[in-house]
Amino acid sequence: MKISKNINPYWREGESKDFGREAIEYAAGQDVLLDQAFVQYECLVNMAHQVMLRKQKIINPEITAKLLKGLKRIMFLDQAGKFILIKELEDVHSNVEQYLIRKYGIETGGYLRLGIARNDQVYTDTRMYMRDKILAISLELVKLIEGLNKAAEANIYTVMPGYTHLRVSQPLTFGHWLTAKAFHFLDDLSNIIKYFDIVNQCPLGIFEMAGTHLPIDRNLTGKLLGFNKPTPHSLYTADLRGELEAKLIVEFAFLALHIRRTMNEIILFTTNEFELFKIDNLYTTGGTAQPNLENPDTLEVIRANMALFLPSAVQLFMMMDVLSSGYNRDSQQTKPVLFNTIKVMAEALPVFTGIVTTLKPNKKQMEKQANLNFSIAPSVAIQLSVKGGISFREAHRVVKTMIREGFLKKSFLEMTPGIISEAAKEAIGKDLRVNETDIAEFKEAGKCVLLQDSLGGPAPQQVRKMIKAINLKTNSFSRQITDKEKRLKKAENYLLQEVNKLIMLN
Amino acid sequence: MKISKNINPYWREGESKDFGREAIEYAAGQDVLLDQAFVQYECLVNMAHQVMLRKQKIINPEITAKLLKGLKRIMFLDQAGKFILIKELEDVHSNVEQYLIRKYGIETGGYLRLGIARNDQVYTDTRMYMRDKILAISLELVKLIEGLNKAAEANIYTVMPGYTHLRVSQPLTFGHWLTAKAFHFLDDLSNIIKYFDIVNQCPLGIFEMAGTHLPIDRNLTGKLLGFNKPTPHSLYTADLRGELEAKLIVEFAFLALHIRRTMNEIILFTTNEFELFKIDNLYTTGGTAQPNLENPDTLEVIRANMALFLPSAVQLFMMMDVLSSGYNRDSQQTKPVLFNTIKVMAEALPVFTGIVTTLKPNKKQMEKQANLNFSIAPSVAIQLSVKGGISFREAHRVVKTMIREGFLKKSFLEMTPGIISEAAKEAIGKDLRVNETDIAEFKEAGKCVLLQDSLGGPAPQQVRKMIKAINLKTNSFSRQITDKEKRLKKAENYLLQEVNKLIMLN
Amino acid sequence: MKISKNINPYWREGESKDFGREAIEYAAGQDVLLDQAFVQYECLVNMAHQVMLRKQKIINPEITAKLLKGLKRIMFLDQAGKFILIKELEDVHSNVEQYLIRKYGIETGGYLRLGIARNDQVYTDTRMYMRDKILAISLELVKLIEGLNKAAEANIYTVMPGYTHLRVSQPLTFGHWLTAKAFHFLDDLSNIIKYFDIVNQCPLGIFEMAGTHLPIDRNLTGKLLGFNKPTPHSLYTADLRGELEAKLIVEFAFLALHIRRTMNEIILFTTNEFELFKIDNLYTTGGTAQPNLENPDTLEVIRANMALFLPSAVQLFMMMDVLSSGYNRDSQQTKPVLFNTIKVMAEALPVFTGIVTTLKPNKKQMEKQANLNFSIAPSVAIQLSVKGGISFREAHRVVKTMIREGFLKKSFLEMTPGIISEAAKEAIGKDLRVNETDIAEFKEAGKCVLLQDSLGGPAPQQVRKMIKAINLKTNSFSRQITDKEKRLKKAENYLLQEVNKLIMLN
Amino acid sequence: MKISKNINPYWREGESKDFGREAIEYAAGQDVLLDQAFVQYECLVNMAHQVMLRKQKIINPEITAKLLKGLKRIMFLDQAGKFILIKELEDVHSNVEQYLIRKYGIETGGYLRLGIARNDQVYTDTRMYMRDKILAISLELVKLIEGLNKAAEANIYTVMPGYTHLRVSQPLTFGHWLTAKAFHFLDDLSNIIKYFDIVNQCPLGIFEMAGTHLPIDRNLTGKLLGFNKPTPHSLYTADLRGELEAKLIVEFAFLALHIRRTMNEIILFTTNEFELFKIDNLYTTGGTAQPNLENPDTLEVIRANMALFLPSAVQLFMMMDVLSSGYNRDSQQTKPVLFNTIKVMAEALPVFTGIVTTLKPNKKQMEKQANLNFSIAPSVAIQLSVKGGISFREAHRVVKTMIREGFLKKSFLEMTPGIISEAAKEAIGKDLRVNETDIAEFKEAGKCVLLQDSLGGPAPQQVRKMIKAINLKTNSFSRQITDKEKRLKKAENYLLQEVNKLIMLN
Repeated sequence: MKISKNINPYWREGESKDFGREAIEYAAGQDVLLDQAFVQYECLVNMAHQVMLRKQKIINPEITAKLLKGLKRIMFLDQAGKFILIKELEDVHSNVEQYLIRKYGIETGGYLRLGIARNDQVYTDTRMYMRDKILAISLELVKLIEGLNKAAEANIYTVMPGYTHLRVSQPLTFGHWLTAKAFHFLDDLSNIIKYFDIVNQCPLGIFEMAGTHLPIDRNLTGKLLGFNKPTPHSLYTADLRGELEAKLIVEFAFLALHIRRTMNEIILFTTNEFELFKIDNLYTTGGTAQPNLENPDTLEVIRANMALFLPSAVQLFMMMDVLSSGYNRDSQQTKPVLFNTIKVMAEALPVFTGIVTTLKPNKKQMEKQANLNFSIAPSVAIQLSVKGGISFREAHRVVKTMIREGFLKKSFLEMTPGIISEAAKEAIGKDLRVNETDIAEFKEAGKCVLLQDSLGGPAPQQVRKMIKAINLKTNSFSRQITDKEKRLKKAENYLLQEVNKLIMLN
Repeated sequence: MKISKNINPYWREGESKDFGREAIEYAAGQDVLLDQAFVQYECLVNMAHQVMLRKQKIINPEITAKLLKGLKRIMFLDQAGKFILIKELEDVHSNVEQYLIRKYGIETGGYLRLGIARNDQVYTDTRMYMRDKILAISLELVKLIEGLNKAAEANIYTVMPGYTHLRVSQPLTFGHWLTAKAFHFLDDLSNIIKYFDIVNQCPLGIFEMAGTHLPIDRNLTGKLLGFNKPTPHSLYTADLRGELEAKLIVEFAFLALHIRRTMNEIILFTTNEFELFKIDNLYTTGGTAQPNLENPDTLEVIRANMALFLPSAVQLFMMMDVLSSGYNRDSQQTKPVLFNTIKVMAEALPVFTGIVTTLKPNKKQMEKQANLNFSIAPSVAIQLSVKGGISFREAHRVVKTMIREGFLKKSFLEMTPGIISEAAKEAIGKDLRVNETDIAEFKEAGKCVLLQDSLGGPAPQQVRKMIKAINLKTNSFSRQITDKEKRLKKAENYLLQEVNKLIMLN
Repeated sequence: MKISKNINPYWREGESKDFGREAIEYAAGQDVLLDQAFVQYECLVNMAHQVMLRKQKIINPEITAKLLKGLKRIMFLDQAGKFILIKELEDVHSNVEQYLIRKYGIETGGYLRLGIARNDQVYTDTRMYMRDKILAISLELVKLIEGLNKAAEANIYTVMPGYTHLRVSQPLTFGHWLTAKAFHFLDDLSNIIKYFDIVNQCPLGIFEMAGTHLPIDRNLTGKLLGFNKPTPHSLYTADLRGELEAKLIVEFAFLALHIRRTMNEIILFTTNEFELFKIDNLYTTGGTAQPNLENPDTLEVIRANMALFLPSAVQLFMMMDVLSSGYNRDSQQTKPVLFNTIKVMAEALPVFTGIVTTLKPNKKQMEKQANLNFSIAPSVAIQLSVKGGISFREAHRVVKTMIREGFLKKSFLEMTPGIISEAAKEAIGKDLRVNETDIAEFKEAGKCVLLQDSLGGPAPQQVRKMIKAINLKTNSFSRQITDKEKRLKKAENYLLQEVNKLIMLN
Repeated sequence: MKISKNINPYWREGESKDFGREAIEYAAGQDVLLDQAFVQYECLVNMAHQVMLRKQKIINPEITAKLLKGLKRIMFLDQAGKFILIKELEDVHSNVEQYLIRKYGIETGGYLRLGIARNDQVYTDTRMYMRDKILAISLELVKLIEGLNKAAEANIYTVMPGYTHLRVSQPLTFGHWLTAKAFHFLDDLSNIIKYFDIVNQCPLGIFEMAGTHLPIDRNLTGKLLGFNKPTPHSLYTADLRGELEAKLIVEFAFLALHIRRTMNEIILFTTNEFELFKIDNLYTTGGTAQPNLENPDTLEVIRANMALFLPSAVQLFMMMDVLSSGYNRDSQQTKPVLFNTIKVMAEALPVFTGIVTTLKPNKKQMEKQANLNFSIAPSVAIQLSVKGGISFREAHRVVKTMIREGFLKKSFLEMTPGIISEAAKEAIGKDLRVNETDIAEFKEAGKCVLLQDSLGGPAPQQVRKMIKAINLKTNSFSRQITDKEKRLKKAENYLLQEVNKLIMLN
């Protein structure tokens, strides 16, 4: 059966053809395109509602059976790409209802909307959509973190310069840098997974925004649709539209910030001037006029795309900000924002993972740079304080004198107990004596970094611990994702079984 | 001729198939879709460059003729929807070049890019696109303002309540309210038209970002493409990418703010509680469950859509913020933002114009509301001060006493010289005498508003002057738009004539 | 002892007077003003570090004792308003160190900074500050929710119109409306309290950003300062600066959105046209020219102030966005943003609580408005469907016919079984029979709303359940706040005891 | 005379002490602090209004004289820091009125507010404040551009690497880079100066928002206050509040973006790895632990501070977005945003000017870097095309072959006609012959850059032209600023003369 185009929303039946013409042309046009993504959810929602009406004996078994059969048919048609929404019916809800009315007559099809409104339907569809996307994106984050962790494991001894004010400072290792990124993404993953549970409450049954006098069972419909529980307040539920989406987008904004900052650093660290890493050339392009360029196009495009999120949250805030309690059509326009942000993030994540997990460290250059700038001066000063029995501030003066007064020309490699002693006399007027063994490991960044083993520091044993901790957490999140997926699948299967039972009873 | 799919960007010729694979998949995919809108501009830009090369004798006439012929062909194919860009060639620039190389061989087609880079090409395409869209949107604004003005003309005597703190206050007329809106949109129109001149400078010839040693003539190419003049500095021009777009979007954001505030007011003024206006039912919908609703869906969707602009500017700022001088691929992602914002504004404006120019004032209700709340108290106080020879602050006390101490029950209609006199005694201990004629017109908002004839006020003679002033300005802007359109058309015709001449010479 | 003004940062000792002059003038000026709020925290942090160094035997007992004594003195001076930071020393950290060096000489005072950097100090100070403020604001939220709940309790039978598209729709109760707000604020409270645990990890010991080779015990210092645990990664910790603040501000932004939307509604609902509530006149002002106005100034100022938060988050994002890993001075400028947002929220909350918990419902007007617009049509249609044995869509047609074809003039009060029967014939050609008892409660919003008892609906028994649920949760949060406060206090007491012991040992 | 604290706003006279208590405490507190900056403007505004009332014969000469004398006194007191606003009177307007009432009695002082409202007063004060600040900031911009231009002049031959994708690309000169910045700041200056004329329209006389029936002369008051003309529409004028401020802040946001991007580049170009410039050490600091660091603190703080502006515009948009026409108290909160943004910009500009005009180019390193990466390949390819008679795309292949197939090891310095010939055979199978003289200048960036003399390019003759053009424009803007300052001063003097005349007449 094909839905004819000569069709009306209910509210226009018997009214002038002009009534709402622009509203449909301008306002509904884009909406039905987006609603196409909701057809499966919409059918499941209607099924759950019908199954519940039946259990509550609000509707008779024959009608239930027909409606459920029709809904199954729509799901099937949609999977085959053959249930195309038409804008004259404004949205997925009316398209589905109209299909059933055409198929079974208004005496039967007209029961579909008993005790259910377009409002609670779209709220429920949206949450089901968000649930699925949250899990998909979480899975990508798991892969990203696992990739970073693996790369870190291979680089716990790879010295790397650290930067403060973008000047070479305390040395790191590449493994330490990679695990720092992993921790940021763990935060993001944790926030996003936690948000699943916020989203996973069922709005179905709030009707427009103020419930109904029908004896509906919201616990049952919620359960049939895999939700943890029904939302606790009908008006509050309606007013969450847009805010719920904004919160997810804000979490994405933090994730995007981490991606952007990482892209910035990699683009910088792979310049001709820094040359600390090399990007896998899967992700670079050449110049069309300058043949030997390897341009970080992919990184730049990801970086640019990541600027979408916080502004999108601002956009949603502006939309919601002016709205009074209850339903307002403005909220419908939160849908394209939600869809777009999810799409951009979902597409970027695997590419980003590819980039950061295939970076090739330029070990020689990293070690060389890590020694620039007397980068380990703070450690030397601490060591002189501890071993030489002077205060840190005195030791700092000694180090400063060594560097600024020409005792050392280029680096701490030149440092000897004698030089220290002389510099100390000049700097603090004291006779400072340390042994060669006290300072042997404080002449090169590559050695010094291995000693920085305070909790969380770059020393290999610390990074190993971090890798372990990250693995533990990631595995735990990974299991959570799988569990949630399973529970959703299980609920859906159960619902479809119930549907089949009720169909077969007739 | 069909462009085959087995094709490479130049930088990948002779390189591994993996080189840049992800860059093309991830980064170029969306780009070519958007670049499709640039094919005509791209061809014109290349034509102008070739004509100039010829005039400068940098290239020989046969090659020029062939390239120009090929470019004409591409324009024709594109108009017929048959020049579909392929993503393996990354962008419109390489698609066009490759077409010519395939058609005429590398010895001829390979001359296309002599002294021109993808950078200056895209900068020029973008400005040509922006020019056209600025004019189209300006025209819509002219229509909007003309519509408002016409509606105002019909309503210079229609009393309307004014609001402060959203409480009924000094009375207005509906014509006054409509002209206030017109003035805001005039500002927007003025800003957008002025911005045309900023955009209308030609980037062609800056090459990548630092010019070339070829003796190119940027004045000529600029003229051939209808620009006022070339941009003055190559690096500065490159760095304007993104910022130029952001500025336009910011102007749209102010326009959008005016639209949003107007939608807010209309939605409010048409509630059951206010009922000051009625919206034409072209723009409203009915409730699917509550049959007598007339919901302002179209207004709400416009309002929501208008939340796009300032956040989009923030997005562009974030993109550009991290970029060093010169070209960065991030800037390519400013294109979808620009396209989307222009589309949303272009679609909304005519609908918005329809809504605000067909509002039906509910005159009785407006007059009733305008009298609420002793709204004309300030005028009464002024009048008592002037006519009674007491200071304003004393007169204010008298009015306050009349209202708060029960001299007047409901409105100033009850006010008499006697009551005033008594209230004055109580309030300021003075014997205040005014005549009935002094106060006759200060008892009703509908009369009082006609007297508020200070410059810019709601009195009919003032509003008439405003309508005239708005008309004058709008006409002037309208002429500017037409002039600019003509100049662009003329330049294009001239370019195409030159092209034809050079083709025929061979 | 007074700190003289002729003083230098360490890095300028022995350098030209010009070195860093502008840096200090421009950059440090505001910083020390803000740092004044950190003096207590800074001293505690230094104490914890010194106690730890002693336990680890890194420093000798005499020096420890002196430093601790000096730090206690600073805390005392600061409490008396007598430890004023000077900008030549740039920040609280150097001011404290310099004080101790002046007091005890560089041989002793110079030990203060052994194994601790300004970076980890300021990160720790900031988190301690945030902890305290989070708890204070959470407490205000508890009071707000309790107030709303109490007001709701008194209004579970107060009928109130509900709105969709800002038109009167399904009826609510005032208690239902108030509990909806309470649920939003519960979300905010929940998010903010959860965030306490994220913040409550100790950065101390990450040194600049890459740890140290000194055998410091970060678990111990974390515990002494009341933190749950140390942060797990030094570089990651450094890079959280700004983002940590942004996350809190984002939570405030959602809270602010709820406050703004509530203010909007109240300002609207108290207009002359709506008159659903009255605002306590503690919060309104009069007009200086129009005496009988009661302007909602306080509400408007709160509403305006609540626009601060999301933009402030954008500001922090922009700041952090460009920064490479490690310390960058930009991050210092996150401090005024954090301080300001917290101040604005802390000041607004009690006033907001006052406003919303003292609203006086205008019951007569609310009931009248709730009946406008055939607001209960959806319930009537459902009832006709269920009782009349017709489908919902048929019932909807019957209702529509009653309203639009003149069967009912003004409201459902006129509805009788006879009218229904006639309308049904006209609308669906069926003989629809219902009894008067079936429809008796579906003629007035005030009766109908009592029946809307689906889970989360406005029926009194539902709202009572919500009130209970809100109370339970609020009490639980309240206990969490108290527990956290106690734990912080206990840790501080323990630290001060340890300090005193170590002082007395000498 | 001292204003006592036991004082009331007018609207509270005779009302309960509770009326508006919180409104004053919460809402007025901050306002009077900010209003302190408006006292001078407020007095001038009142003077202009009184002079006009007198000329229109609306008020008698004795009263006028007294009020004007009182206003002069207030101006004097305020200049001496002795007219301190008290919050119980809410704002500057009521403080001034109350002072005059106390001084001259209500019979005289009570005339101050005749035909003038707090609304049009604050709108006028704000525009006068904005005018002054716009001129001050414009002057700073003139200095900045002049400084950049002068630095450019000294560096038109200083070779500097250009970057695309942050990789070394076409060479520039330092003078070219500096003039690029100058052009951006010229745009900003141009926008800000143009905005002066938008701001410079007088709102005085719109009364609350709907004018008055008094025969006031808005042209006269506008002229007396130095405005170009009165605003054309009273309601429109009222609704511009906030938007007017937002527009200025948006212009600042673009300026701030240019500053941020410049700071980013300088911080990058002064890293140990790039070392292209040196920052004057006035603006850097040393490390407290790493003695040889020269940290760009001042640049980082400026960069961070520049993140204020666009978010502040978002904040104002959010504030205004929800407001209906007419006055709303929310708009008062735009004042702190305006004040703060202006302050931050005004303080940053001179420091920024200092930094960018004292940069010390590291010429050797710049030249070396400019040759990296075969940066001049595009010019070489163009030259081979033109001189060798092959197409650009063929020439590009030859260059690619030279670089990628080992004909050249490190740079184009090794390029000879023979090598070119061999590479051409391999690359395109042609016998390509060029002379040594054809390529002599295409072996080094330093030579090649001098040839890039297309309009706007880096060749010295081009940069000289730009410097001239920038000078011309800057001088013109500079004259505009001076003219505007003079006109404001002249208007003020004229007003004060009129005031004195009217005082002396009595």
